[in-house]
Amino acid sequence: MSELRKDPISARWVIIAPERARNPFGSRQISTNTNKESNREVEDLCPFCPGNEELTGNSILHLPENKNWKVRAFANKFPSLKVEGDLNREAKGMYDYISGIGAHEIIVDTCHHGKGISSLDTQDIEFVFQAYQSRILDLFNDRRLRYIQIYKNHGNLTFPLGEHSHTQLIATPVIPDILKTEYKNTRKYFANKERCLFCDLLNQERESNERIVTENKDFVLFCPYASQLPFEIQIYPKRHSHDFSGITPGEIKSLSEIVKDALVRLDTALKNPAYSMTIHSGPNRRAFGVPGKWQTIQFDYHWHIEIFPKISVETGFEFGSGLLINPSLPEEIAKYLKNIPC
Amino acid sequence: MSELRKDPISARWVIIAPERARNPFGSRQISTNTNKESNREVEDLCPFCPGNEELTGNSILHLPENKNWKVRAFANKFPSLKVEGDLNREAKGMYDYISGIGAHEIIVDTCHHGKGISSLDTQDIEFVFQAYQSRILDLFNDRRLRYIQIYKNHGNLTFPLGEHSHTQLIATPVIPDILKTEYKNTRKYFANKERCLFCDLLNQERESNERIVTENKDFVLFCPYASQLPFEIQIYPKRHSHDFSGITPGEIKSLSEIVKDALVRLDTALKNPAYSMTIHSGPNRRAFGVPGKWQTIQFDYHWHIEIFPKISVETGFEFGSGLLINPSLPEEIAKYLKNIPC
Repeated sequence: MSELRKDPISARWVIIAPERARNPFGSRQISTNTNKESNREVEDLCPFCPGNEELTGNSILHLPENKNWKVRAFANKFPSLKVEGDLNREAKGMYDYISGIGAHEIIVDTCHHGKGISSLDTQDIEFVFQAYQSRILDLFNDRRLRYIQIYKNHGNLTFPLGEHSHTQLIATPVIPDILKTEYKNTRKYFANKERCLFCDLLNQERESNERIVTENKDFVLFCPYASQLPFEIQIYPKRHSHDFSGITPGEIKSLSEIVKDALVRLDTALKNPAYSMTIHSGPNRRAFGVPGKWQTIQFDYHWHIEIFPKISVETGFEFGSGLLINPSLPEEIAKYLKNIPC
Repeated sequence: MSELRKDPISARWVIIAPERARNPFGSRQISTNTNKESNREVEDLCPFCPGNEELTGNSILHLPENKNWKVRAFANKFPSLKVEGDLNREAKGMYDYISGIGAHEIIVDTCHHGKGISSLDTQDIEFVFQAYQSRILDLFNDRRLRYIQIYKNHGNLTFPLGEHSHTQLIATPVIPDILKTEYKNTRKYFANKERCLFCDLLNQERESNERIVTENKDFVLFCPYASQLPFEIQIYPKRHSHDFSGITPGEIKSLSEIVKDALVRLDTALKNPAYSMTIHSGPNRRAFGVPGKWQTIQFDYHWHIEIFPKISVETGFEFGSGLLINPSLPEEIAKYLKNIPC
């Protein structure tokens, strides 16, 4: 049974999940496959390929419905958190403990083995974001779950069979600490100004036009002023909304276009880099749905997407201390990305 | 000219240092050296080897004094921050900016090319910690500098010539945000209890004895309750002290012994892993030495050392979201490390 543990010095929650160590795909393996298997053999073995659904267990969702799936969600066979069981919050001496309640799902982004998001049609990327939305809305019914983290590690985790593009979803009974800090800062700003911090930033970025790469009807893609790493990208929705799951079908179309645009630019600039992509969004309203506690819901937050290509630079990033050195100017990176034909 | 920029959403400072991109050792290069050079050739070329001091510029410090050096400090040729110039704090619209004032030094840990800390005699490791202390005490005279970050990335950054063990020192006019959070939490605890949070944790750890690996006269080595990664190690001094630079010669001896012990155990357990090691310490007192501002000095903090071996596991760590999944039980890791003969 996994558990959540809080470090009292940093106030950071960590999921301790010893069962995960048994996950055959849990360790980042460098493919040492020299005699390349034929495509047919790979598709017979890959648990994420159509036809092999029994290897992963029942689908929770498949899109489009009533057809051969293009996107499919199922429970992780080696979950770090489970829906079954009681949510216990306990003191272990000075430490804080919560039983490992939550959800851990895999969303396979495409039926095509070896294709990344950047090489999918935008119509097919729409299914990916629809799947995210649908899974979040479903899991938000569970009032024990406070946050749903959606993240993609692309290209880094080399499967023995080559990568089949997928997304991980983890629902937790706590708010991850980076989000907690962001909520606090946006709330403080709103309390001062009665305006959204993100909306104000977006206006300023669009006015200065120093770091904007591109925008469409609903979204703006830019390199943040205080980028932590070279080629860091953020995508903000123009419409203020605290919660990704409130996205409209029209916005999903725009989002798919701009995410594809971002990844194609990165592919061109950095020759198909590994990257991570994550959605930052508000917490589960229902988890705080007690009268008098409504004010703790982050309506003043503004959901957005963060993309970090994993390129090899010495950043001075020190896991334990948090001071980053970015050897590139965000303004120059933005200009460079802007000029890539797309 | 580099600069410090603050992200208003996360309140995180980042050093933007475009000159660093020119650093020939700046990118993490995988050595593709197939025709292995002879040791003699390497020692002719390595800028950190004795005899090649002119490649790096003047020594700031060398230990032991008046003899052939075993440990040597000099200014980084491609610094992310510089001592020269004025400290300007400015608003750039909604953003916060500080000119790139600070210091960036290299401390070469040993005169022996290719030897890591774990294979040095403890007497020689003492010179390393003496050098840290001496450089911190000197830099603390500059009241513009608020924090001095000492970190070692061992084994990851493969130099073309093979690694020559060294430490980086970065002095900043801001407190890194992880430290700021730790200061805040220890202060809150102290305000409540009039006791140090770290001292209380240490007592509890020693009583339960579940995660202690070893201890000596002055230090305790253990795996933290909420370890973020497998084989994470922390070393706490038994004597309460907020500031590493207040360490006594006797404590330096004990520290060298226990750090060597930690690294030898990790070498045995994980077959010479890459690791990062960092000191968490209090801020520069003099930077806050204005009457009435003394209360902002973190006497209630407790300096310590954090070591993270870099092993390849899928941790679920998402750069942009901060929720970590550790697939190992800290209690089991501690037991395993404890049983390694040392």
